[in-house]
Amino acid sequence: MPKKIAVLMGSISDLDTIRPAISLLGELGIPYEAHVYSAHRTPAEAAIFSKQARANGFGVIIAAAGMAAHLAGAIAAQTTLPVIGLPVKGPHFDGLDALLSTVQMPQGIPVATVAVNGAYNAAMLAAQILAVEDAALAQKLAKLREQMANGVLAKDAQLQTLLNV
Amino acid sequence: MPKKIAVLMGSISDLDTIRPAISLLGELGIPYEAHVYSAHRTPAEAAIFSKQARANGFGVIIAAAGMAAHLAGAIAAQTTLPVIGLPVKGPHFDGLDALLSTVQMPQGIPVATVAVNGAYNAAMLAAQILAVEDAALAQKLAKLREQMANGVLAKDAQLQTLLNV
Amino acid sequence: MPKKIAVLMGSISDLDTIRPAISLLGELGIPYEAHVYSAHRTPAEAAIFSKQARANGFGVIIAAAGMAAHLAGAIAAQTTLPVIGLPVKGPHFDGLDALLSTVQMPQGIPVATVAVNGAYNAAMLAAQILAVEDAALAQKLAKLREQMANGVLAKDAQLQTLLNV
Amino acid sequence: MPKKIAVLMGSISDLDTIRPAISLLGELGIPYEAHVYSAHRTPAEAAIFSKQARANGFGVIIAAAGMAAHLAGAIAAQTTLPVIGLPVKGPHFDGLDALLSTVQMPQGIPVATVAVNGAYNAAMLAAQILAVEDAALAQKLAKLREQMANGVLAKDAQLQTLLNV
Amino acid sequence: MPKKIAVLMGSISDLDTIRPAISLLGELGIPYEAHVYSAHRTPAEAAIFSKQARANGFGVIIAAAGMAAHLAGAIAAQTTLPVIGLPVKGPHFDGLDALLSTVQMPQGIPVATVAVNGAYNAAMLAAQILAVEDAALAQKLAKLREQMANGVLAKDAQLQTLLNV
Amino acid sequence: MPKKIAVLMGSISDLDTIRPAISLLGELGIPYEAHVYSAHRTPAEAAIFSKQARANGFGVIIAAAGMAAHLAGAIAAQTTLPVIGLPVKGPHFDGLDALLSTVQMPQGIPVATVAVNGAYNAAMLAAQILAVEDAALAQKLAKLREQMANGVLAKDAQLQTLLNV
Amino acid sequence: MPKKIAVLMGSISDLDTIRPAISLLGELGIPYEAHVYSAHRTPAEAAIFSKQARANGFGVIIAAAGMAAHLAGAIAAQTTLPVIGLPVKGPHFDGLDALLSTVQMPQGIPVATVAVNGAYNAAMLAAQILAVEDAALAQKLAKLREQMANGVLAKDAQLQTLLNV
Amino acid sequence: MPKKIAVLMGSISDLDTIRPAISLLGELGIPYEAHVYSAHRTPAEAAIFSKQARANGFGVIIAAAGMAAHLAGAIAAQTTLPVIGLPVKGPHFDGLDALLSTVQMPQGIPVATVAVNGAYNAAMLAAQILAVEDAALAQKLAKLREQMANGVLAKDAQLQTLLNV
Repeated sequence: MPKKIAVLMGSISDLDTIRPAISLLGELGIPYEAHVYSAHRTPAEAAIFSKQARANGFGVIIAAAGMAAHLAGAIAAQTTLPVIGLPVKGPHFDGLDALLSTVQMPQGIPVATVAVNGAYNAAMLAAQILAVEDAALAQKLAKLREQMANGVLAKDAQLQTLLNV
Repeated sequence: MPKKIAVLMGSISDLDTIRPAISLLGELGIPYEAHVYSAHRTPAEAAIFSKQARANGFGVIIAAAGMAAHLAGAIAAQTTLPVIGLPVKGPHFDGLDALLSTVQMPQGIPVATVAVNGAYNAAMLAAQILAVEDAALAQKLAKLREQMANGVLAKDAQLQTLLNV
Repeated sequence: MPKKIAVLMGSISDLDTIRPAISLLGELGIPYEAHVYSAHRTPAEAAIFSKQARANGFGVIIAAAGMAAHLAGAIAAQTTLPVIGLPVKGPHFDGLDALLSTVQMPQGIPVATVAVNGAYNAAMLAAQILAVEDAALAQKLAKLREQMANGVLAKDAQLQTLLNV
Repeated sequence: MPKKIAVLMGSISDLDTIRPAISLLGELGIPYEAHVYSAHRTPAEAAIFSKQARANGFGVIIAAAGMAAHLAGAIAAQTTLPVIGLPVKGPHFDGLDALLSTVQMPQGIPVATVAVNGAYNAAMLAAQILAVEDAALAQKLAKLREQMANGVLAKDAQLQTLLNV
Repeated sequence: MPKKIAVLMGSISDLDTIRPAISLLGELGIPYEAHVYSAHRTPAEAAIFSKQARANGFGVIIAAAGMAAHLAGAIAAQTTLPVIGLPVKGPHFDGLDALLSTVQMPQGIPVATVAVNGAYNAAMLAAQILAVEDAALAQKLAKLREQMANGVLAKDAQLQTLLNV
Repeated sequence: MPKKIAVLMGSISDLDTIRPAISLLGELGIPYEAHVYSAHRTPAEAAIFSKQARANGFGVIIAAAGMAAHLAGAIAAQTTLPVIGLPVKGPHFDGLDALLSTVQMPQGIPVATVAVNGAYNAAMLAAQILAVEDAALAQKLAKLREQMANGVLAKDAQLQTLLNV
Repeated sequence: MPKKIAVLMGSISDLDTIRPAISLLGELGIPYEAHVYSAHRTPAEAAIFSKQARANGFGVIIAAAGMAAHLAGAIAAQTTLPVIGLPVKGPHFDGLDALLSTVQMPQGIPVATVAVNGAYNAAMLAAQILAVEDAALAQKLAKLREQMANGVLAKDAQLQTLLNV
Repeated sequence: MPKKIAVLMGSISDLDTIRPAISLLGELGIPYEAHVYSAHRTPAEAAIFSKQARANGFGVIIAAAGMAAHLAGAIAAQTTLPVIGLPVKGPHFDGLDALLSTVQMPQGIPVATVAVNGAYNAAMLAAQILAVEDAALAQKLAKLREQMANGVLAKDAQLQTLLNV
């Protein structure tokens, strides 16, 4: 049975930032669950979910949080599944607080950090991780890359037209 | 019975940075306990300690950690005792990662943050908190302030001598 | 008689930022006073207020200021009451100037710093400090925490509905 | 056959920083190859290696580089295998240049970034990725976690002795 | 035959930022080509263009990119033509990520970096490079400088009028 | 009678950093006094000195402090004499905390800020201020400038010799 | 005859930022001239003005510029009059580029730097410098300070009314 | 006659940082002159040199300076030759002050900025600029690139040996 991906967010207010991750997982046909669990307001629920995640069929956990973004680290402390940290831009510092709080993990407990507000890439990375042992998914990802490349080349063609006008 | 202060550190390697806190508490005659609890390597122990801290006679918890410094926040998530966050300078960024990870807490779960490597002030703040309802301790702190002021004035006198040479 | 909390701001223009602190204190039934005192424009009034704060029945002082935010430090220099520094975002640097000016206090004079514009947490921390020796207030805070947790769990339930649509 | 891990570095001068990754892979019995490939000085070799990595039996690629650290991104552009970016502290900016150059990837091409000079965690993350579908490796990682936790608890016990002296 | 200038951008969304460069080249009568080539989405096309650029009659390449801005470095890795890096402000960090990713190139592969979003200056620098051996172009640039200076002096005259009102 | 310059420092530990200021004042024959006054440990003494400074014959006050460097601002709050702020590098952040705490003063109370650890320039600026109405001192400063220029030209001559070897 | 103050700006687009300086000088009855001189586009004019400023009756020069803000330094290189640097926020980095370019002057050539966009304070500092030897102006400044203090106290009174509603 | 390269430094103390530039120019057989000219201490000499540089046979000017690094900008203001700015790490901020002061030039006057302390690359870029119209030099640079690539590949081979031991 294919592994699921968990998409956790510290606050429902992060949902808009996170939607591109959910969309991509849907588009790729990867099963997922999404939850609001706060490292600080519901630490017990976050811990229990993480501890049982592997047994419950999850393969990767994405954790999105802003400010003193502890969620990804708190999840990573409870599981040896790969945890992807998605730093969310908060009201100040343009997400630098969330980025440093997410990426600067101490020895032994890594968090795979992506760009500030980089939800699409968090899901893409999760898919790439599942695709290590899933040839069909790897195939899909290769196709997506090809489409991206073609998109850029189409834009280049369009630029030539624009500049000649 | 007087409240105790807990001095928690994420790693024993932070002990040298933290010693000035322990010394000041000893000097002021405030009972304390010190522990190594990691938010990421021993999250359960850190949570249990914090949840029981008020019942176990603690009044304030000091939590010292570096890098993605989650310890103070993880403690604060488990108790309504005041938690003092002491950001410890790690191998990079001069402690800015620890400062932002400690101070930028989300609404509802404050951490009282002091300067990077400011262990002495963490203990002083803890003492000031206990002194709100402890007149004898407040007296001691007032005296300490007076000594500090006199120390500065003595340095000024010494400077006059130095410059006249 | 219960201790009061002082809420000081360097400029009346900070009032909107500070309102969540005042609201929370009102909600918790904690007596407070609020004042506009500038470390630079009315240093004498700020000093007199602080020096007499303990005798006047205050237990904690919250000081909010932006830019070269000296107010909290100037207050802390005049009292051994715990002083909570609230860095206010000014016109530049996203509050980093205020944060560093507030948190990086020299040895002996701590300021308990909260997040940039974190007024709610400043009041929460003040309440937690008073609750060290006030069991009824501690009870209220525990309840508030429970409500927060339930709020997060409700959002999670709501998210499940949203995603199934 | 178990997947291999590739450990790529932009310069042989990064080898000392990277050794903890190599040691951990050895300790865990995970097959690996290490190479010096520069995104700027040998871009063709780096591209060829990456393009063929999946076919050549690799499951994860770790890419370590400093300054304008393009290696991880250049690798990620050529493969859909998960690429772990290890920002290496260069002569200036304490690794912030390498961190931002590694983590701030554009949409579509993620790099799983770990802490500055966090080689041990890069290897740990690589192992966690392979362990998603490798129960025996997952078992080893769980054991390692347990040893880490016990190490912290042993330090706490040792601290009690230290403080009682 | 006069050398051409290539204006490459990582994404068509950067076009508005880049227009001042294209306008200046047009104004100066310098032949140019503009292309959308992504270091990460179309690395092969970017490499082929750069490798052949000198043979194809280009004298300077301008490369504009944001975030982990690798384009200029990737181009510079494939040619010994002077490459001008134009860091483009992305959604976060005000372009600091792009600036550091562009300017902090390792020894041997320089990128001539201009200000964040400084497209006009990128084209001016390209023109100045071509003008080293092109006296007519140098003449034009000298004239442009004179016009700039006169523009400033006219503004000063206008200011005198403004202030006397 | 010529105006004196006051050189105030927040801590005697800053004396080594400040010596170049004292030396230059001596060299220029400008009368000065130096004092250790802390904005936080001896706020009353700092305030009294500043309030009386103009009446006591001072023309400029230099205030040197590190970390949350409030000294210059606290002095400036008590006098309308020009106050020169000298940010001193503390144990962290390379003096950025002191620089922002010194320069980002609110409207109405300026501090004339010089470079981090720029004690020589603080004294030079003080001298330049006194020289506005002191032609003899202005003469001395012009001479010093000439010597500086000659020093640079001598180094250039020396460089020619070095490179020819 | 009273000394004049020069208000120089690198670009007429900075005029709105600079107006509070001009207004304050007018309000204080201090004679001034304002000019647009660019360190980079009209370096000769800027140099000539500065070299002759003392002879032409100026006592202080305010120089406002953004980005790589060289104007104040370029002026200071040509005169021993006190030069006040006013860093102007440009399109990026919130004025940090201008602040560092203005304040970090090398030994021998100080620039008295005020806060980013702190035009009012630049003029106030200029007035304070002239007031060192001008008792009437000093009197005016003392009065202005008193008004400021009264303004703050009035706001405090107003706050009491607001909160009682 | 081949164009010369000018290597200007703001202070002789920067010479050690700059030597790799001088060595590379020597190695490539490119004629050069080196001078100590300070934007602030010898502005006239710096201006005269720059204004006459094209007529005197120079093709590119490298300008190295630290702190508020104005030298490159001051040179660029006087010539339309390409000016390469080399930010030199000063006593604070790891060269960030010099980098921003060098790269953030206003519209019309570009400075081609290289990495902090990147002297080798400054000379390489200068050579690449001259090589636009000098096929023999372009040949030499291509060869140097090949040697660099071979050096990396040799290191990779050496690494294989190291790891097999």
